Amino acid sequence: MITRMSTLFLRTLREDPADAEVPSHRLLVRAGYIRRAGPGIYTWLPLGWRVLRNVERIIREEMDAIGAQEVHFPALLPREPYEATGRWTEYGDNLFRVKDRKQADYLLGPTHEEMFTLLVKDIVPSYKGLPLSLYQIQTKYRDEARPRAGLLRGREFVMKDSYSFDLTDAGLQASYDAHREAYVRIFDRLGLNYVIVAATSGAMGGSASEEFLADAAVGEDTYVRSPGGYAANVEAVTTVVPDPIPFDGLPEAHVEDTPDTPTIDTLVAHSNAAFPRDDRPWNGADTLKNVIVLLRHPDGTREPLAIGLPGDREVDIKRLEAQVSPAEVEAFDEAQFAKYPDVVKGYLGPGVLGTESKTGIRYLLDPRVVPGTRWITGANEKGRHVFDLVAGRDFTADGVVEAAEVRAGDPAPDGSGPLSLARGIEMGHIFQLGRKYAEALGLQVLDENGSLATVTMGSYGIGVSRAVAAVAENTCDDKGLAWPRELSPYDVHLVVAGKTDEIKNAAEEIATALQIAGHSVLLDDRNASVGVKFADAELIGVPTICVVGRGVASGVVEVRDRATGSKVEVPLVEVAEQLGAAIRRR
Amino acid sequence: MITRMSTLFLRTLREDPADAEVPSHRLLVRAGYIRRAGPGIYTWLPLGWRVLRNVERIIREEMDAIGAQEVHFPALLPREPYEATGRWTEYGDNLFRVKDRKQADYLLGPTHEEMFTLLVKDIVPSYKGLPLSLYQIQTKYRDEARPRAGLLRGREFVMKDSYSFDLTDAGLQASYDAHREAYVRIFDRLGLNYVIVAATSGAMGGSASEEFLADAAVGEDTYVRSPGGYAANVEAVTTVVPDPIPFDGLPEAHVEDTPDTPTIDTLVAHSNAAFPRDDRPWNGADTLKNVIVLLRHPDGTREPLAIGLPGDREVDIKRLEAQVSPAEVEAFDEAQFAKYPDVVKGYLGPGVLGTESKTGIRYLLDPRVVPGTRWITGANEKGRHVFDLVAGRDFTADGVVEAAEVRAGDPAPDGSGPLSLARGIEMGHIFQLGRKYAEALGLQVLDENGSLATVTMGSYGIGVSRAVAAVAENTCDDKGLAWPRELSPYDVHLVVAGKTDEIKNAAEEIATALQIAGHSVLLDDRNASVGVKFADAELIGVPTICVVGRGVASGVVEVRDRATGSKVEVPLVEVAEQLGAAIRRR
Repeated sequence: MITRMSTLFLRTLREDPADAEVPSHRLLVRAGYIRRAGPGIYTWLPLGWRVLRNVERIIREEMDAIGAQEVHFPALLPREPYEATGRWTEYGDNLFRVKDRKQADYLLGPTHEEMFTLLVKDIVPSYKGLPLSLYQIQTKYRDEARPRAGLLRGREFVMKDSYSFDLTDAGLQASYDAHREAYVRIFDRLGLNYVIVAATSGAMGGSASEEFLADAAVGEDTYVRSPGGYAANVEAVTTVVPDPIPFDGLPEAHVEDTPDTPTIDTLVAHSNAAFPRDDRPWNGADTLKNVIVLLRHPDGTREPLAIGLPGDREVDIKRLEAQVSPAEVEAFDEAQFAKYPDVVKGYLGPGVLGTESKTGIRYLLDPRVVPGTRWITGANEKGRHVFDLVAGRDFTADGVVEAAEVRAGDPAPDGSGPLSLARGIEMGHIFQLGRKYAEALGLQVLDENGSLATVTMGSYGIGVSRAVAAVAENTCDDKGLAWPRELSPYDVHLVVAGKTDEIKNAAEEIATALQIAGHSVLLDDRNASVGVKFADAELIGVPTICVVGRGVASGVVEVRDRATGSKVEVPLVEVAEQLGAAIRRR
Repeated sequence: MITRMSTLFLRTLREDPADAEVPSHRLLVRAGYIRRAGPGIYTWLPLGWRVLRNVERIIREEMDAIGAQEVHFPALLPREPYEATGRWTEYGDNLFRVKDRKQADYLLGPTHEEMFTLLVKDIVPSYKGLPLSLYQIQTKYRDEARPRAGLLRGREFVMKDSYSFDLTDAGLQASYDAHREAYVRIFDRLGLNYVIVAATSGAMGGSASEEFLADAAVGEDTYVRSPGGYAANVEAVTTVVPDPIPFDGLPEAHVEDTPDTPTIDTLVAHSNAAFPRDDRPWNGADTLKNVIVLLRHPDGTREPLAIGLPGDREVDIKRLEAQVSPAEVEAFDEAQFAKYPDVVKGYLGPGVLGTESKTGIRYLLDPRVVPGTRWITGANEKGRHVFDLVAGRDFTADGVVEAAEVRAGDPAPDGSGPLSLARGIEMGHIFQLGRKYAEALGLQVLDENGSLATVTMGSYGIGVSRAVAAVAENTCDDKGLAWPRELSPYDVHLVVAGKTDEIKNAAEEIATALQIAGHSVLLDDRNASVGVKFADAELIGVPTICVVGRGVASGVVEVRDRATGSKVEVPLVEVAEQLGAAIRRR
């Protein structure tokens, strides 16, 4: 097919849109692929729609190849199934809720575990219908608190979600592995730089799960890697726990005056000045910092939570939220401090924390705070700290929590070396859900012995619209977009670089030859300057740009590779053939 | 491709679903194409999804062929543009409204005129970007008061909507004509029995419009046809207005006692008994019936409306609603009568009607009530009627309304003969919107003289999911579905009718040969009886059924045509070739 730019519904922009924070967003708007329709809500223009459909095609081919069957659910869903699994409440403000004219409750589906579970319950009576994998490519909704970065975090977006149904754990593992392999092929074909990392399962429930992250500085996810091959989302990293230390011979705890030391830095400085240690100076890791946050549960109730962790580390809110999900974490503000007079800001210690203490505030410790470790920590009086307070001897807590930040150089939990950190965009997530949804919604089938058995499920997602932005982010440069061949809206961008009939006719002939060979051509036949045309071609990012200009007189055209910038002259008589060959090599 | 029924996600039902009212709905559920997810909300199973995608493909091909460009809007839309055109209010309860976490108002788009208008305003600065046609195939929402008949009237449904943008009325006409021709090709390819009728434009605004109705007894639309080629939705039919009659020589009006005559039938009977006419008996057409309804405006206010029409006709609520849109029509109930003591039920006459009368109730007359016509009508006293009341002499009204029922035998407005009535399903609707939306939203472009000119628009819709049901309705029989070739989920349904290896191998070989030739095969390899397999094949409705059974021993298989029921024996060595030829002939 041939699309003529003189009639294409396209307006490229030379200026960055005011609200675009990341390169992919800026370029997708400037190159006329998408337009904002509202916060986190986008319209696909012709070029963008072609790329999105290419992503969908790749996903369909690979899902079909593993025997997954395509279905399509509504986006407007009744409340009841989501009530049965608790997610009507758990999703909190993230869920778009709708009332119909009869005041019945509906939601705009953020993900469809419940609906798939009920459908399989309706259709599959026995083990003979298993194993089964179903998928859909469908528009989903999430009322993000902070929609950002264009398609990367929208409120209406396209996802591929699939679900596997098996009778046995081994069957689930096989379905999971098949999806994992399909995802590898999909992300390879998308041309993404990605990494597969261990993940937490968030609000989804279930156990084993991995994420596919596109490597990108603008990504919202932080992940870690070790030289030995460990890779995990930072939320899934577990701390290497030191051995406990015997209490024998440890000094008694003693309270000291530490005026004006409400921060770790001031406390360490004061301790080194007033109570120097013989072998080495005090540092942040010798102090136990106690941080209070407020958990907001999905039902709207709030609960304070104290976390004790080495003073040289901050609480990582995303790691904490992964632990306390579906609760969200809010700041413990002055109004809260006023409610708890025993909580002395800056001098808070374990003595007033814990459900058994007088405040009753739940208290969780970083895993490094093992029995026998000695700490400087708040004495619960302004200007006073306690020294040599020994975990397990002088204080205990209500449990352990993985909420401290992970730092480059921390040891990998599997002993494979020190961790390094990078950022990525979550492109895919595969989960072994297990029997949680099947139990909540009564999905049982007859097994080979005629007994009822609960089905075990997997859940697998790909951000389809997000993939468009992630690939753009991975491949763009300062001139514009640069699509991998399989995703490009057109196979060839043909620039008519001149106004003579000879040039125009040569371009038309090349376009026709390519069209006959089954390739798609974006033909820049506009009455615009060559400079404008070149700039637009680089902005739009079709991988092969063919410039038909004055060279035609001597029988040549120029073929440019958008990604590398390389240019070659090709004889006019060979160009259609050569371009076709390049397209087929993808 | 080959899909094996042993692993297909399918369960056919022998019984009709309890909630299915029409054949297409019953069969689409029984054959495993769709499942109900909520009132007016359906899930597409693999077979149904394949049919829907075929409909989409046909529409895309034909829209692309007229140069329309595909885009894709969100379904979740901000309130503001719909506020600007008044439709936020006009849609009333039919609109699904959503508030986000910040309490901002959104809607689930029922149609996208506003969004397209604003997008073109953003992208097209001058006449050089026109003419322009854009389309999308997208999920739409309408909170129907009475969702019914499965996919025929759902609350979440797929539509193709397109919009044309032109500078001149002639340009709009050309764009409209191009769409009309594309629609003819689309509905021809869908295999629908359809008729193109003149239509009213409803809540859309604008002037010229036509509907494409699929002929179906279960349709919600009534349309009329004349021998001379007139065709119109019954809502668009205009009454042939008789000439006025001179008042000279007409008798004076006189009030008579007509005890116990609150209905037209009792009034006519009493009149013939008590006041017989010389030349012919009184009949309903001699009486003027005055009907009061309540209009409910989109803003929730209510207003009584009286309609005077010949007593032998009923008010057609759908015709009335087309005239008073966006108001809806409600019953004028006892509580309302109580508010208007001058309105004497059963004896209501023009004397107390009209905005100038003592009730102040707006009063509209059927077009047949021309000046000089004489009527028997209510005297506004219980048990009394007035005779020889002459329109234009003894009473007037606030205007005219096309609200009386259209009956078979009524004359076509263009003089092309008597009308006959039939029912249809609205499949497509094409409108010349004109400049209404462009004016409301400020869509102007520079014309050739550098002046700003307001763009004129067309709006064109096809019910995509509805088409699946309409084609099913048009083509099904008592055994099941019977798809036209272009829509069928598979090219061939291959039934393995026997358990010997010879039969199984022969079926596999045919399936493979068809697959290699690029055809899709539904292979019934289940361990089920031949009777079950035949019943399912007829229920599922693939146009060609190939039965591989005992005939294999003598080198033949049976090829059945699902629609006609014809059966032929085909030599095994030729079957793949012959089936392929039949598929290509579509």
